[in-house]
Amino acid sequence: MSNVLTLGEIMLRLSTRTDTRLNESKQFQVHYGGCEANVAISLANYNHNVSFASKVPDNALGLAVKRHMQHYGVSTDSLLFGGSRLGCYFLETGVGERTSSVIYDRANSSFSEMDTFEWEMDSFFNNVELLHISGITPALSKQWAILTQQLMKEAKRRKVKISFDINYRAKLWSHSNAKRVLSTLLPLVDYCSAGKLDAIHLLDIEEAGSDLTYYYEEMSKLYPNIELFYSTLREIHSTSYNTLVGTIWNKGNLYTSKKHMITPIIDRVGGGDAFSAGVLHGLLTKQDYEYTVSFATAASAMKHTIYGDCNQFSIEEIEEFMNRTDQRIMR
Amino acid sequence: MSNVLTLGEIMLRLSTRTDTRLNESKQFQVHYGGCEANVAISLANYNHNVSFASKVPDNALGLAVKRHMQHYGVSTDSLLFGGSRLGCYFLETGVGERTSSVIYDRANSSFSEMDTFEWEMDSFFNNVELLHISGITPALSKQWAILTQQLMKEAKRRKVKISFDINYRAKLWSHSNAKRVLSTLLPLVDYCSAGKLDAIHLLDIEEAGSDLTYYYEEMSKLYPNIELFYSTLREIHSTSYNTLVGTIWNKGNLYTSKKHMITPIIDRVGGGDAFSAGVLHGLLTKQDYEYTVSFATAASAMKHTIYGDCNQFSIEEIEEFMNRTDQRIMR
Amino acid sequence: MSNVLTLGEIMLRLSTRTDTRLNESKQFQVHYGGCEANVAISLANYNHNVSFASKVPDNALGLAVKRHMQHYGVSTDSLLFGGSRLGCYFLETGVGERTSSVIYDRANSSFSEMDTFEWEMDSFFNNVELLHISGITPALSKQWAILTQQLMKEAKRRKVKISFDINYRAKLWSHSNAKRVLSTLLPLVDYCSAGKLDAIHLLDIEEAGSDLTYYYEEMSKLYPNIELFYSTLREIHSTSYNTLVGTIWNKGNLYTSKKHMITPIIDRVGGGDAFSAGVLHGLLTKQDYEYTVSFATAASAMKHTIYGDCNQFSIEEIEEFMNRTDQRIMR
Amino acid sequence: MSNVLTLGEIMLRLSTRTDTRLNESKQFQVHYGGCEANVAISLANYNHNVSFASKVPDNALGLAVKRHMQHYGVSTDSLLFGGSRLGCYFLETGVGERTSSVIYDRANSSFSEMDTFEWEMDSFFNNVELLHISGITPALSKQWAILTQQLMKEAKRRKVKISFDINYRAKLWSHSNAKRVLSTLLPLVDYCSAGKLDAIHLLDIEEAGSDLTYYYEEMSKLYPNIELFYSTLREIHSTSYNTLVGTIWNKGNLYTSKKHMITPIIDRVGGGDAFSAGVLHGLLTKQDYEYTVSFATAASAMKHTIYGDCNQFSIEEIEEFMNRTDQRIMR
Amino acid sequence: MSNVLTLGEIMLRLSTRTDTRLNESKQFQVHYGGCEANVAISLANYNHNVSFASKVPDNALGLAVKRHMQHYGVSTDSLLFGGSRLGCYFLETGVGERTSSVIYDRANSSFSEMDTFEWEMDSFFNNVELLHISGITPALSKQWAILTQQLMKEAKRRKVKISFDINYRAKLWSHSNAKRVLSTLLPLVDYCSAGKLDAIHLLDIEEAGSDLTYYYEEMSKLYPNIELFYSTLREIHSTSYNTLVGTIWNKGNLYTSKKHMITPIIDRVGGGDAFSAGVLHGLLTKQDYEYTVSFATAASAMKHTIYGDCNQFSIEEIEEFMNRTDQRIMR
Amino acid sequence: MSNVLTLGEIMLRLSTRTDTRLNESKQFQVHYGGCEANVAISLANYNHNVSFASKVPDNALGLAVKRHMQHYGVSTDSLLFGGSRLGCYFLETGVGERTSSVIYDRANSSFSEMDTFEWEMDSFFNNVELLHISGITPALSKQWAILTQQLMKEAKRRKVKISFDINYRAKLWSHSNAKRVLSTLLPLVDYCSAGKLDAIHLLDIEEAGSDLTYYYEEMSKLYPNIELFYSTLREIHSTSYNTLVGTIWNKGNLYTSKKHMITPIIDRVGGGDAFSAGVLHGLLTKQDYEYTVSFATAASAMKHTIYGDCNQFSIEEIEEFMNRTDQRIMR
Repeated sequence: MSNVLTLGEIMLRLSTRTDTRLNESKQFQVHYGGCEANVAISLANYNHNVSFASKVPDNALGLAVKRHMQHYGVSTDSLLFGGSRLGCYFLETGVGERTSSVIYDRANSSFSEMDTFEWEMDSFFNNVELLHISGITPALSKQWAILTQQLMKEAKRRKVKISFDINYRAKLWSHSNAKRVLSTLLPLVDYCSAGKLDAIHLLDIEEAGSDLTYYYEEMSKLYPNIELFYSTLREIHSTSYNTLVGTIWNKGNLYTSKKHMITPIIDRVGGGDAFSAGVLHGLLTKQDYEYTVSFATAASAMKHTIYGDCNQFSIEEIEEFMNRTDQRIMR
Repeated sequence: MSNVLTLGEIMLRLSTRTDTRLNESKQFQVHYGGCEANVAISLANYNHNVSFASKVPDNALGLAVKRHMQHYGVSTDSLLFGGSRLGCYFLETGVGERTSSVIYDRANSSFSEMDTFEWEMDSFFNNVELLHISGITPALSKQWAILTQQLMKEAKRRKVKISFDINYRAKLWSHSNAKRVLSTLLPLVDYCSAGKLDAIHLLDIEEAGSDLTYYYEEMSKLYPNIELFYSTLREIHSTSYNTLVGTIWNKGNLYTSKKHMITPIIDRVGGGDAFSAGVLHGLLTKQDYEYTVSFATAASAMKHTIYGDCNQFSIEEIEEFMNRTDQRIMR
Repeated sequence: MSNVLTLGEIMLRLSTRTDTRLNESKQFQVHYGGCEANVAISLANYNHNVSFASKVPDNALGLAVKRHMQHYGVSTDSLLFGGSRLGCYFLETGVGERTSSVIYDRANSSFSEMDTFEWEMDSFFNNVELLHISGITPALSKQWAILTQQLMKEAKRRKVKISFDINYRAKLWSHSNAKRVLSTLLPLVDYCSAGKLDAIHLLDIEEAGSDLTYYYEEMSKLYPNIELFYSTLREIHSTSYNTLVGTIWNKGNLYTSKKHMITPIIDRVGGGDAFSAGVLHGLLTKQDYEYTVSFATAASAMKHTIYGDCNQFSIEEIEEFMNRTDQRIMR
Repeated sequence: MSNVLTLGEIMLRLSTRTDTRLNESKQFQVHYGGCEANVAISLANYNHNVSFASKVPDNALGLAVKRHMQHYGVSTDSLLFGGSRLGCYFLETGVGERTSSVIYDRANSSFSEMDTFEWEMDSFFNNVELLHISGITPALSKQWAILTQQLMKEAKRRKVKISFDINYRAKLWSHSNAKRVLSTLLPLVDYCSAGKLDAIHLLDIEEAGSDLTYYYEEMSKLYPNIELFYSTLREIHSTSYNTLVGTIWNKGNLYTSKKHMITPIIDRVGGGDAFSAGVLHGLLTKQDYEYTVSFATAASAMKHTIYGDCNQFSIEEIEEFMNRTDQRIMR
Repeated sequence: MSNVLTLGEIMLRLSTRTDTRLNESKQFQVHYGGCEANVAISLANYNHNVSFASKVPDNALGLAVKRHMQHYGVSTDSLLFGGSRLGCYFLETGVGERTSSVIYDRANSSFSEMDTFEWEMDSFFNNVELLHISGITPALSKQWAILTQQLMKEAKRRKVKISFDINYRAKLWSHSNAKRVLSTLLPLVDYCSAGKLDAIHLLDIEEAGSDLTYYYEEMSKLYPNIELFYSTLREIHSTSYNTLVGTIWNKGNLYTSKKHMITPIIDRVGGGDAFSAGVLHGLLTKQDYEYTVSFATAASAMKHTIYGDCNQFSIEEIEEFMNRTDQRIMR
Repeated sequence: MSNVLTLGEIMLRLSTRTDTRLNESKQFQVHYGGCEANVAISLANYNHNVSFASKVPDNALGLAVKRHMQHYGVSTDSLLFGGSRLGCYFLETGVGERTSSVIYDRANSSFSEMDTFEWEMDSFFNNVELLHISGITPALSKQWAILTQQLMKEAKRRKVKISFDINYRAKLWSHSNAKRVLSTLLPLVDYCSAGKLDAIHLLDIEEAGSDLTYYYEEMSKLYPNIELFYSTLREIHSTSYNTLVGTIWNKGNLYTSKKHMITPIIDRVGGGDAFSAGVLHGLLTKQDYEYTVSFATAASAMKHTIYGDCNQFSIEEIEEFMNRTDQRIMR
């Protein structure tokens, strides 16, 4: 059991049933999620001591967030209450040839409007071994771009490992802004989720085919401090049918999972976070990379079969699934 | 059939089931409503030509608003698309001793951020006989306080009757701000929904017991231009059981409806708007005030028996209800 | 355990949720019911051998009817399949001051279009001790007015007791038509559900106050063959709150139940049928009339607390309820 | 924006959930639809001025139809109220190897019992550029076979283009009856939806393989007045998985869309109407036939992904989908 | 129409929605089922006179079981009431790569605690032609292992044919226990559902490839009294997609159905029972084995498309499906 | 914030919708609750550090219990996993005159089968100030009667205050058994929930009218070690309408709350536990008894307005409710 801290925004997600368009919906399904919150829940499922740091309004929606995290055993000691609102987004769940679509309504949220740390740093990082954060946070505001770097430095100073998921969102910032900020953050990072598109558009690596090895190598050259890169390859046959392969890059070696056929997809949101958490779990428990990439990809595939952002499977269930797929589902 | 224009904000309403608290809800019921939109729908139910003017975002939520109004036969020719978001609010529906509670999330909405008229005034008011607007609109921003007055003047110039529902909301502005702005608007108003609390807190009339006649008289003295005042008296026995009496004041005469026992209450939101629309319908069709106050109160009582903001009853149904209650329900 | 036969039409009932108007409903609740079917189910709950005779279309809706009756242990050996359609009706469920309303769509149903008996009479009445039928059946068509009389004569000839519930429906026939037909049926009846309004409008008894004794006496004089009359007195405080008192008239004596306060009412449809079945159960098991009127009224009151047309309580449950109410609910 | 009139019957559709048989269903989903109503809604979504002419009963179900059409912006000025009932049908929604099945209950509907035009023809056709009607209408009654021809002649006289979807339903009329009536209608038609089976069974064209070109050519020879033919080719792999190709025939040229893989199918009803409306939109906006057949087929494919009879996508959404499929779904 | 008796345990099944894990479910779907109950319902659907013998508690759950069986026309004359509880199980419904999982809570049920026959044997077997029982019953307790043999002997003595479905459940007994008990039962059996795994693990037949002929032959040698063996071959591509082939072995001949592609699977529980019942129906109505294996497999495939344990299709529907698949679904 | 430990059984609760009988239900609502678990959750809502000790099976249902407690911030460090099953009960929710009814299925649960402490006592009681336990626990088995006393002694030795809710359940033990065991426990108790019926039937106090003062006095004489007694007086007008008054007895003084009218009642289960927790909160925070009895009764009344066993209101909400009722609801 390791002590992990994740920090980021968590939003109210309002989603439709599969068969109805958003504008015709008489009911929305209610869920709460965010990249780092999802990773926190996965890691708590794997029996780590995880704390989630964020800021939410001091009302029933903030309380719902608190209970959502507590439900899965994540500590909310670093969850702040205050500010103006909880960011939210509307998800029209697609099916078959119809893609899912999203309306964001996240401006002016309690978290994005933070302009200073409201935690006491020493107790904040007390006993923490790993900090996980994503590229969404520095994208939220100029202030958060600065705060993110400060946070990483504080972590660094305390020998806390830093995991960073680039998670580029075009609706939040431009390529050029992201490049500028990432260049201040990546030198501080230990583990990084980044793929081919990130390499090309955000790290100025020249496009050269689809071989991941090339991109991972180039990224490693740029940031030799980054011990491990990881990402997934997804083929989208339809909104209801994807395939998924996970990859890890470490010390010049590429580790690749088997290919999962995911059909039907119940809920794709959080699939990437489940993969990240699976990788981090492998690192925290010092598993070999073969196991880790298989575990993380299996966790991500399983996540697609349930409603909601967060992985709801235990280590035992995922391991059973890893073995089972050889025999029955992949043939 | 008269031509009516109502203008105001319309919001997304997300509400819970009666038996569950907001923070524990896994589903929200979805509805769209606002004071002036609700009045528009009532009047369309009574066969008037009604147009609703507002501004909503150019996305699925804006489309939902458009379809909501079209559904009931309200014209959306003056509904603008653009701006940043649709205001929303969360309604925890109470029951018995537990009151309903609301979380507003309406800042920065497409409508509230308007700072100039985006309609062409001549076509906007083309053929319009009555404009209905509420005190929520001038409360939204300094700009809207000015725009509201301008709008009333434009209406006045075109001999359009002006109906105004004070509808004071403490969460939007202070008593002193409201007083200042209302003093610029009320001299332009023809029909006004205002009660004892409005008289005391917003019009500086001295408190003197509970006799409505006194307050109506004093308000009439202040604003002799206002031809007709109206409001309801509600006794709240519990969240599930209210009584309701409607009143109209015209030329020194008070007209009072019978008292309705409303239990159980299915949905109280929009009950006041149903009353306003009932009064306006009486005025537009030149009914006597006895009929009008009975009709408007019956419409409001009926509204409480269905889910959603808007009255869903026809003239015939409400009249049948007015007669029926004498025989069966009131004894 | 007695052998009972009931005959009549059964319809598809499509109803709304309490909080939504029929025209806005996105879902209808599906149920199957009819006066005689409901009585059959009650009597089967009381462990009698009951057979329900009717005709339904030979499709999924007819199958649904068959399974609905079988479910409660009613024999469907006399249920015919064929004809054009299953009659249906739409029920907008009211609440509080808003009454429930019904749209009938029952013309041309398989049952109403029958113009000859399609059963073999000897096996039809084999072992039957009691036949129950209502005034709806002779109202369906001229042919059914004749067939109903023939059926009663066939029953009479076999010493089968005849129970008849007048159940006047203004939408099916006029007072004058009903009078004419009833005068051919009532001389054959043993037990009859009829109240004050039936006495006045259908049996030409002069109106004289509200004392039931007078009307029962006058009806007894007209039809001395009728051994027992019964009916309920219902006060309608609102759609959600009624009171109910049951009455039985036998040999010049009036037996009256206590008054039940029924609030909230979940579903009023079939309340009268539950009362009829309770009376018939008392007769079949030779209970005294005090017990019988209490049992029947309690069964009817209980029926109001569940969704659906049919009483779902056993003898034991109703008797427990009869005792319980003394102590807790009536004080 | 063009002015379009569609005329036909609209029915109440009562459908089951995918996993339950009709006879076991405790709830039905409620929807309203009909061939011409569905086309009207599609065209309104594409910003045309569309009016839907029909006759529905003057009750809550008729009001529901009115609001259903208004909801999507279709004018109901030519929707008549009266007659005896709204036709309805019961849809057991299939899945996988189990096909969907339907029980019709449409006899004696308000529309089918019309025996004379109840509209004033000049205002009825005022400004109309296109009339759309289907083969269901002349199949409803002898009278409607005559009225349909009269209507087409009235349209012709006013230079209104006539679109006709043969839409043969074996449950409504025989091949021989249909042949006789169609031979009076097709000489008046400008655009016609007809496929191979129509050609063989209704137009007496000799069967000769599966090449559509042959059938379109032969039909064009028979009715040179028909400017454009169109139809879809559907392969049914299972109830949940179909493929779809659209075709248009104009001046000897066959235009064919790409093949859409539709899986899972949410709701197939109205898929053909979405295709028809897409073709008509292309014609009204003078698009080329390549675009038109792609647009119409994409609209039809999209329709299969949502519950309900009617296409709910805008021009922009369908065009985006047309482009998107190249990249992701079709490879 | 034949007279059939089935005997076994029936349980309360509590299942989740496809998209939610058991531990997160706020609602369970309620169903009642068991191997022999399911076979009884299938056979009643095929118009046989079927009686289901079991023991359930004398409470609302026992009543629910009674009504469940009556609903489908199965006689409950041999259903006993008493004992301590109804066994239940929790089913987490899987999807795609995620398998379904079950928690059993069946210990101490009213049926499993029976230690003597509570039926009078002569009336119990009165007119019965076929007894169906499964290997679950002797596995429930030592006493039931003995009672099962006694029951078979009673049947044998009365010339009742005995059908036995081995239905091995590792959670109920070990291979060695099962072997011992089965060796006392199989000499009494006429028709037996057993497959390759049963042959190897329970009948000590040496494993030799996947050819079913070998295993059937060896089993026939061991138990020449068994007239007919049957089983299905299922390929599990995913939880949502299986293929199914049915087989029958009789007098040295293997009869094999076509292969059904079942996707999506709505509910797999009871698929095997539907196959068994189809085979028994073929035997009871003396169909040839080609028809019988096709009918039984089609019934099983159809069962997968509806929620619940029990086949809900009639002979006509299954036969139509058998023909239909040739033309449309299998190509 | 105080440190509190509660210990007891927690069960799976399966309940029906208000309008449907248990045996007809197609769905059950799922909830988890128990006397001491409910008290734990209330106290966690009031910001105390609460730990809940129990034993649940190591499966999805046990996990659900863990998450249910974590959700509300209760520590599950003392929640054990193992044993055979989770006890459950079926609740048919009554309405109006129909009472709720329960079927228990709790035998052989993991908790009730415990026969030794599986916690290490020192860490179990580490920092604990208050232990809460109910009379259900010693009623579960002979072993638990002994273990309960041992537990209280361990607590006593560590100066932990002991709160005990007699909570007599006739289905679990007889009066005489309860008397015997209670006489071993009550000498160890500090705070005790006991009412008139407990006094008469379990403590052999002579019945003498309805004045609570008498009974409290007599109980105090018997157990002078008990510092404080408390209980509620409930009038049951119907299943949907109760009134509630709370009482506390301390040092010869009776403290009584105002009378709450609770109508409609959404869910009565856990109402008593909410009262107990309110009293304990008052004690832990050293509030005066007037406040405490008002707070506890208000909390209990509020609990009745939401679905589920556990109070979901904060200190602030309950206090606001205490004040609010004076002004609006009680007049």
